[in-house]
Amino acid sequence: MLNPCDEGFLSRLAALLPDGTLRPAEPRHLEEPRGLYRGRPGSVAMPGSVEEVSAIVRAAAADRVGIVPWSGGTGLVSGQVMPEGPLPLLLSLQRMSRVRGVYPTENVLVAEAGVTLLAAQQAAEAAGRLYPLSLASEGTCTIGGTLSTNAGGVQVLRYGNARELCLGLEAVLPEGSVWHGLRRLRKDNTGYDLRGLLIGAEGTLGVITAASLKLFPRPARHGTALLVVPSPAAALALLSLAGERVGTSVTAFELISGTGLRFQRQVLPQLRQPFAEPPDWSVLVDLGTEADRDPVALLEDLFAAALDAGLVSDGLVAASEAQRQDFWAVRENMNEANRRVGAILSNDISVPLGLIPGFIDAATAEIARSGPFRINCFGHVGDGNLHFNIFPEEGGTRAAHDAARGPLMRLVNDLVAAHDGSFSAEHGVGRAKVGELERYGDPAKLAAMRAIKAALDPAGIMNPGAVLRG
Amino acid sequence: MLNPCDEGFLSRLAALLPDGTLRPAEPRHLEEPRGLYRGRPGSVAMPGSVEEVSAIVRAAAADRVGIVPWSGGTGLVSGQVMPEGPLPLLLSLQRMSRVRGVYPTENVLVAEAGVTLLAAQQAAEAAGRLYPLSLASEGTCTIGGTLSTNAGGVQVLRYGNARELCLGLEAVLPEGSVWHGLRRLRKDNTGYDLRGLLIGAEGTLGVITAASLKLFPRPARHGTALLVVPSPAAALALLSLAGERVGTSVTAFELISGTGLRFQRQVLPQLRQPFAEPPDWSVLVDLGTEADRDPVALLEDLFAAALDAGLVSDGLVAASEAQRQDFWAVRENMNEANRRVGAILSNDISVPLGLIPGFIDAATAEIARSGPFRINCFGHVGDGNLHFNIFPEEGGTRAAHDAARGPLMRLVNDLVAAHDGSFSAEHGVGRAKVGELERYGDPAKLAAMRAIKAALDPAGIMNPGAVLRG
Repeated sequence: MLNPCDEGFLSRLAALLPDGTLRPAEPRHLEEPRGLYRGRPGSVAMPGSVEEVSAIVRAAAADRVGIVPWSGGTGLVSGQVMPEGPLPLLLSLQRMSRVRGVYPTENVLVAEAGVTLLAAQQAAEAAGRLYPLSLASEGTCTIGGTLSTNAGGVQVLRYGNARELCLGLEAVLPEGSVWHGLRRLRKDNTGYDLRGLLIGAEGTLGVITAASLKLFPRPARHGTALLVVPSPAAALALLSLAGERVGTSVTAFELISGTGLRFQRQVLPQLRQPFAEPPDWSVLVDLGTEADRDPVALLEDLFAAALDAGLVSDGLVAASEAQRQDFWAVRENMNEANRRVGAILSNDISVPLGLIPGFIDAATAEIARSGPFRINCFGHVGDGNLHFNIFPEEGGTRAAHDAARGPLMRLVNDLVAAHDGSFSAEHGVGRAKVGELERYGDPAKLAAMRAIKAALDPAGIMNPGAVLRG
Repeated sequence: MLNPCDEGFLSRLAALLPDGTLRPAEPRHLEEPRGLYRGRPGSVAMPGSVEEVSAIVRAAAADRVGIVPWSGGTGLVSGQVMPEGPLPLLLSLQRMSRVRGVYPTENVLVAEAGVTLLAAQQAAEAAGRLYPLSLASEGTCTIGGTLSTNAGGVQVLRYGNARELCLGLEAVLPEGSVWHGLRRLRKDNTGYDLRGLLIGAEGTLGVITAASLKLFPRPARHGTALLVVPSPAAALALLSLAGERVGTSVTAFELISGTGLRFQRQVLPQLRQPFAEPPDWSVLVDLGTEADRDPVALLEDLFAAALDAGLVSDGLVAASEAQRQDFWAVRENMNEANRRVGAILSNDISVPLGLIPGFIDAATAEIARSGPFRINCFGHVGDGNLHFNIFPEEGGTRAAHDAARGPLMRLVNDLVAAHDGSFSAEHGVGRAKVGELERYGDPAKLAAMRAIKAALDPAGIMNPGAVLRG
């Protein structure tokens, strides 16, 4: 059983740390974007070095006080907010925000956990390189948070998720020891993959304090097309065709539904819409190529070949950077339009690419049987990652369907499981999806996870109740 | 303490399994390629299904009998041979050699652990796709072995190592439970990365029985150049230039030393050598491009730009597939030439790319102080992975320098550690490098590894003595 972060603990801790390291938690530390969980007033530690993080964790382990790591606060499953149980100490690494080194020859960047994703991207760009992780909250979220949640985003198809983009870590383990694992090596087979284990553990196995990240050559030229497809199955055939013709230069491949475009027309009428009539299904295809390739010509060739093959009925290839931005705005404003319309249920699921059409058909039919709901199904279809969001009937309100939320979530997640999919593709488990993990997780894997948690964090202090029930 | 795999255990086990599953170990099961370790006559289990593997592991856990997984037998650090301690049961999955499915639309292949790497490559090719893992022993080594050792090879620079090429696993955990984790998902953030943990654990945390593997579009065209560089530092600058001009199409970037070319001239005189006089340093650059790019033109442009920048003094771009094969033969015959000359010491090390020139200079100087040795430094320099092999003086024999082996290994590994490098880039730890791991491993990481091993394998039956001392 844990002890609360009380005055006695705080005064013992304060004696170990420079003045000002312990502060009252601010309102932002107690909120999360969905507004479903609320933290309680307490203290936040803002250490300035890995040694200070180590001192904090060691003291918390000794006194059995819970630690909740708080990064950019943008997580959507409440990994960063603990609403109940013994009051925890919050831990923010925002003062550890130094880029420790950029190594263009090595294609490596070493950054502390508190560096924002945007600042890391900019440091790479200043060295003529690309750090490809890219997501909506990149101005706020941090390297530590993106690694702890194994963030994804729009370029996973080409470059992989946060785990695949990380070569090494510096981290404080739950008993307070420091793992100096900031390697800049592409190959290192000397023991278990502690790096991969801490990444995606959502702060339950230790605190990531710095990381060495993979950089890439920057694509010299970009191209974007919006192609109208008759069905999700045609979208997947188009993805294969793109791979065969364009190769690994396909950076993003995003599905857009007619429902989503109609939502934008309704609630964001100022946006320029590329199509006069919203097609039921379209895809945004983005290429990043080297200087010797012409992405517009490649996209036009792909468009023509897809027309011949009956995979595409209409389409637009951006002729200018401004038009590219317009196309991307359609994709990027989807979340805002959804927010304004007011979803009953948002999902972040993945299924094997080949099972996507069957999943969409089955889920659409079952939801129709549940009520007159509207569905906006969109997202990173190139990664098998869909946001399958459910809305009230035209003119209805989400509040009127509060009771339907639970059954609809169960319906969608049961279908996802029946299609060999994941109930959380990008967002993680946090506290919001602990029940789903228990329901849908593989029992042998869950037992192994519990054994690992107990072995590395015997006092159970690291982010209590996240991922695994405390 | 473990019990030996004796007649009592074997008869209990035989009752659980189909006839013929338990067999006497064959000589190949008791040997390893370097001839440094020898197994003892005993039994090998050859199960035909994951359920049979589970029954074997469960019985071994109950009776505390060690299990040594044996895949293709090609490992170089004796992970597959246990020379001492209570006699173990060997476990071969060679009968589990079915490709369970190929999903070209998804770019996924699902293969059982006993499928050879070559068979997996061929199954991908038959579907018009590429499984890019490629190494010298690919005709013999298996998917299970390549994953358990996180194998690398010649295309890591572009496609990553075995861990990065795997989406999901089916595995039997050390208490006998089956983890059904054969997911075909690019994004799945539902709990700890057990996949990454089992990969590279060298059979000490469980038995991988099947895997879902990432496929890629096949490059339509290939090109290869041999470029003469004045120094390893110039080779690294050339790698950067290649990234900037050619992008991610650089598939391999291999360093070749003059010593290595002279060895080939001496012991493999029948080989065509591309250069009249062996240059001190050269690199093999390999490109795989889409149909719209001309790899020969790209390499010629790179050659010209590198000449202008003083990074290259001479070079050849292969004009035909036959010439490409000749260039690759120079690289691929390096191991055979080394074997015939007779190395005192072979290494498989990595250092950060930017520290390679300093490492080579320092190691060369220190080795020269130790004796009149010859050095063949070559390998996957694009990954920071070098084979830094030490040979007797001209006319000398390796036998005459047996006493020097230990001190030379210590000298090289100390320098690797001083350059933030790894004493085992590709080959793993096995039993041969347990002492190095204890000496050079991070203490916090080692403690975490021991805690994980004890938590998942409390009886210590899985590959006893490999990676961690039993």
